[in-house]
Amino acid sequence: AATRNASRRVVRCAARGNQTRARNELSMRKPEYFRSGLGAPVLALTAVGGLYYLYKRGQEKRSRVFIEPEDRKKVVILGSGWAAVNLLSNINTDAYEVTMVSPNNYFLFTPLLPSAVVGTLQPSSIIQPARRFYKDVRESRVKFFEAACTSIDPEAKVVQCKDDSPIVGEKSTFELDYDYLVVAVGSTPNTFNTKGVYENAYFVKTIEDARRLRNHILDCIETANLPCTSEAERKRLLHFVIVGGGPTGVETAAEINDFMEEDISRYYPALKDDIKVSLIQSGDHLLNTYSEAISIKTKDAFERQNINVIFNSRVVSVDEKEITVMDKQTKENYPLPYGTCVWSTGVSLNPLAKELIASLPEQNNRRAITTDKYMRTKGAPEIFAIGDCGTIEQEKMLAKVTDLFVEADTDKDGSLSLTEVKEFSQRIADVYPQMRIHAKNIPTLFAKHDTNSDEVLSLDEFKELLKEIDQGLTTLPATAQVATQQGKYLATVFNKHLHTTNDLSSAEAFQYNHMGSFAYIGKNDAVMDLKQGAFSGFVTWFMWRSAYITKQYSLSNMASMAFDWTKVLIFGRDISRQ
Amino acid sequence: AATRNASRRVVRCAARGNQTRARNELSMRKPEYFRSGLGAPVLALTAVGGLYYLYKRGQEKRSRVFIEPEDRKKVVILGSGWAAVNLLSNINTDAYEVTMVSPNNYFLFTPLLPSAVVGTLQPSSIIQPARRFYKDVRESRVKFFEAACTSIDPEAKVVQCKDDSPIVGEKSTFELDYDYLVVAVGSTPNTFNTKGVYENAYFVKTIEDARRLRNHILDCIETANLPCTSEAERKRLLHFVIVGGGPTGVETAAEINDFMEEDISRYYPALKDDIKVSLIQSGDHLLNTYSEAISIKTKDAFERQNINVIFNSRVVSVDEKEITVMDKQTKENYPLPYGTCVWSTGVSLNPLAKELIASLPEQNNRRAITTDKYMRTKGAPEIFAIGDCGTIEQEKMLAKVTDLFVEADTDKDGSLSLTEVKEFSQRIADVYPQMRIHAKNIPTLFAKHDTNSDEVLSLDEFKELLKEIDQGLTTLPATAQVATQQGKYLATVFNKHLHTTNDLSSAEAFQYNHMGSFAYIGKNDAVMDLKQGAFSGFVTWFMWRSAYITKQYSLSNMASMAFDWTKVLIFGRDISRQ
Ligand SMILES: Cc1cc2nc3c(=O)[nH]c(=O)nc-3n(C[C@H](O)[C@H](O)[C@H](O)COP(=O)(O)OP(=O)(O)OC[C@H]3O[C@@H](n4cnc5c(N)ncnc54)[C@H](O)[C@@H]3O)c2cc1C
Ligand SMILES: Cc1cc2nc3c(=O)[nH]c(=O)nc-3n(C[C@H](O)[C@H](O)[C@H](O)COP(=O)(O)OP(=O)(O)OC[C@H]3O[C@@H](n4cnc5c(N)ncnc54)[C@H](O)[C@@H]3O)c2cc1C
Repeated sequence: AATRNASRRVVRCAARGNQTRARNELSMRKPEYFRSGLGAPVLALTAVGGLYYLYKRGQEKRSRVFIEPEDRKKVVILGSGWAAVNLLSNINTDAYEVTMVSPNNYFLFTPLLPSAVVGTLQPSSIIQPARRFYKDVRESRVKFFEAACTSIDPEAKVVQCKDDSPIVGEKSTFELDYDYLVVAVGSTPNTFNTKGVYENAYFVKTIEDARRLRNHILDCIETANLPCTSEAERKRLLHFVIVGGGPTGVETAAEINDFMEEDISRYYPALKDDIKVSLIQSGDHLLNTYSEAISIKTKDAFERQNINVIFNSRVVSVDEKEITVMDKQTKENYPLPYGTCVWSTGVSLNPLAKELIASLPEQNNRRAITTDKYMRTKGAPEIFAIGDCGTIEQEKMLAKVTDLFVEADTDKDGSLSLTEVKEFSQRIADVYPQMRIHAKNIPTLFAKHDTNSDEVLSLDEFKELLKEIDQGLTTLPATAQVATQQGKYLATVFNKHLHTTNDLSSAEAFQYNHMGSFAYIGKNDAVMDLKQGAFSGFVTWFMWRSAYITKQYSLSNMASMAFDWTKVLIFGRDISRQ
Repeated sequence: AATRNASRRVVRCAARGNQTRARNELSMRKPEYFRSGLGAPVLALTAVGGLYYLYKRGQEKRSRVFIEPEDRKKVVILGSGWAAVNLLSNINTDAYEVTMVSPNNYFLFTPLLPSAVVGTLQPSSIIQPARRFYKDVRESRVKFFEAACTSIDPEAKVVQCKDDSPIVGEKSTFELDYDYLVVAVGSTPNTFNTKGVYENAYFVKTIEDARRLRNHILDCIETANLPCTSEAERKRLLHFVIVGGGPTGVETAAEINDFMEEDISRYYPALKDDIKVSLIQSGDHLLNTYSEAISIKTKDAFERQNINVIFNSRVVSVDEKEITVMDKQTKENYPLPYGTCVWSTGVSLNPLAKELIASLPEQNNRRAITTDKYMRTKGAPEIFAIGDCGTIEQEKMLAKVTDLFVEADTDKDGSLSLTEVKEFSQRIADVYPQMRIHAKNIPTLFAKHDTNSDEVLSLDEFKELLKEIDQGLTTLPATAQVATQQGKYLATVFNKHLHTTNDLSSAEAFQYNHMGSFAYIGKNDAVMDLKQGAFSGFVTWFMWRSAYITKQYSLSNMASMAFDWTKVLIFGRDISRQ
């Protein structure tokens, strides 16, 4: 009854809200981007799309819940990355008081960061102010604070924040209390405690990383070009080593190699023959999360481009001018003189997330914050963890096999027919997502585990079947794709459920929908791993670019990217060391 | 005879050179900017212009002197600024072995630096690789070394250079010997030894300055926006103080104010009322090298924009959070709390130029390297000094008045008629440039100094006339306009005279042609000071932008600037603190 009352109150408020909003609607129809009469040509181009968008948005807004400002629950979002901005731009700010806290006042489009390293794109083209993600900037509905969260108190429901930038006021820390906290702080690079990485290698994780790496690369080239540089020293300076054969490592190697072949060789013809790009991979495949066809394709492409791939090797240490590499087969160490080392071997836990895990006895995974299927932190249900820093706990079905058997056995005959198993698999896919992966294979699995071929499964046979399905349990990868879907999902959860209650039992569980993966492999070639198969070549490369242009969150960045790409196509990349 | 022989040899070589060049010509017709078949639309647009350019260039090249590589004199150019790149792109690399040394491997278009501070333009749009200024990159005709010259030995004709960037090889210094050295190292900001300027204020001189200043401004704003910042602290952080009312100070104040009003106020509505932009000027006029009408116009414009101009005041010191200002009238000091201080009060001597001056007894000006009218350093005629770091010694005519009288008196009657003085003034304008300024006033001056009204000037009367003209002697301003003209002039000197001899007696003296001055004063308004009068308003602003677009040295930068401006017009400036 309480819940029903509350929801009635919400509806009443919504009606009231509609009136005040009607007025705002009017001023909203004047698009705020156009500040000057000179935007005419662009205006013409975007008019149709714009009007349609405003119409849709108006419609959407009218169907939204409205809650009086003083009754709104406080939602604090930590971070301004993929997960955070997708939540921010979809959460109903008519129903929640939203505050975002992040040390970066912008969102970074990470997949294109390797392009920004060499100047295929300008760094400014792939970032976007976080404040542009909330729709009613002028009404200051959302608060944004440029600060880092330093600690979370789940008991008191308070976060401590600190201005960690160069300019700080007399007081640089503050507290925020919340009803719901969303932790979307991402991850940090993983060095596997390798000696010298922090001191001597570069990461490709932040926009500052890209700028510093770019200037380092150009500095190596200019130094190699000086008359006082010996031949050995020149070769060392012109050796670019990328550690890690995942997508970021591969793309960075490809972009650096493009830069060398297309631009540096042209302006520094004397250096051309001494330039070398190497990639060190611990396993024997590049892009080993992609299909094998793609690994092979990438290896071949790198061979053709003279990128020196060193397989089955581990970096032991990175000294100032030398990397020590261990050959995993011979177990021998050898030195590799280098000028630039890029470290890209995966991610580890953000310090804040680490602290949160340590403070909650319910948390036992050391690699990410464990959540339920609604992304609620285990042990602190008012805290959500999304994106790289969270991981959804997946229950093994085997643990409850007897109960599940009873549930599946709808005709209560003590054994399960194929139809019963099929229906059962659909019913519980929400609770056990691992089931979803095998949904189409049920007949095959059924046949396989029906060892006595009696067309039904006994409890023991059913056990074996669940065991195999449980093995398919994998945690979701740390990608922008997952983070985006989680951000959007959580916005829906907020917009539908949490206005007045904490109860999520009627909510749908998060369901990841993998759209496929891209990677740029150099020389206008890209690979694409889809359910439908593996693709590569110029057309794929073109799709890669198109996909990333359309994925931008602002017209302004779309235009910048298109401009940057065209400019590089015509004039080449800039070689200024700024 | 020796000279004649040498020049004959040059001609012979030229003929031989033409043959080898004929082959190069062919490959040159394929424009090297187009790296890919996708440039088609741009190709179409530039084809006509491009062909005409190639035709002109071919013609020009054919008429050029060619000298065998082993016989070429070595020209070392220090710097890659306005003076240096204008020399580099015009000097005949078929006749000289040219080397450029600069710690920046790019040219910076300084007049637009204030726009880059706030993001009206991207920093990358106003810089251009120095290597793009020499025409035959692929042939590596010109050597460019990214290093700073640390000392000059005029006796041994050798310069010492040092790689002063973060990445250095085992050996980071080298020597270059030269036949001619061109010092074009520019100037450094002048702090007038004011306490705390280096530690706490920002300059607007390099691209790095612009980026650091921009991030500082945004950091102040984000800090002001935090809940832990007190009101007083917020007001301090939002106080932007520009010291210096010359063109750079005025433009920087105008750009910062635009940024605040057009962008910051929109995204941070709560901060709007606390933002203040102040400009401190020691005199009682802004832009005091421009006409008075412009000073007044600028003052009015700033008043309208609520820019707080503090006249007749001198900065005594810049502490971390407070500037101490002295009111020149009351002689009293008072504190001014500030968040950002931009220092722009003129230029002083580059350290290298200072050292050169100290090493040459013939040099007695402490503010710049003194040169003759061909820009040859006094005391070291193989060293040229151009741009901000040089100053042309102007001889007073009075010192030689008796000789000049005899020269002017063509009919040898012991007195000078108006015609004689007119003809004389034209004849010697090359030697005494001050005469040129008065060329049109000769009749008036003649009448004025013909005290006994006998229609001729006696020696004493002539003396008084020369005295007045000598007073018109001023050193050239430290501007890009002067530097550009000097660079081009020196290229002509090299291309016409210095191939085999050091003799410049047949060369024309440098002649500065002032084209007028622009300044941006905010809100799409600019002022223009021409011989024809003073202009301002939207049309002037439009001309200002057009002029700077067409003055770019590359199509690529022109396109970038046009794109940046359009983007800001439509979407506003970026507020990301990178
Ligand atoms: C070079 C590169 C290329 C990639 N390419 C792809 C790709 O092609 N496809 C793909 O799907 N994925 C890609 N990824 C992975 C993808 O970027 C991440 O999975 C994604 O960014 C995770 O999103 P997130 O929101 O969890 O974290 P992030 O996007 O990393 O955002 C974390 C945010 O938290 C903020 N933050 C950090 N600490 C604090 C704190 N203490 N308090 C408050 N805020 C804090 C940060 O400033 C940041 O805004 C790539 C990653 C990199 C580095
Ligand atoms: C913000 C700003 C706005 C301006 N606006 C205008 C304007 O609108 N119109 C106008 O006419 N003028 C303007 N000026 C003035 C103009 O920029 C200078 O007069 C001009 O740059 C001088 O040219 P230069 O070649 O002498 O020196 P610079 O252009 O300063 O170049 C000096 C070069 O020397 C290099 N260098 C320094 N030390 C060494 C060393 N030890 N060894 C080797 N190389 C060295 C530097 O890296 C640089 O490349 C402006 C200046 C600034 C700072």
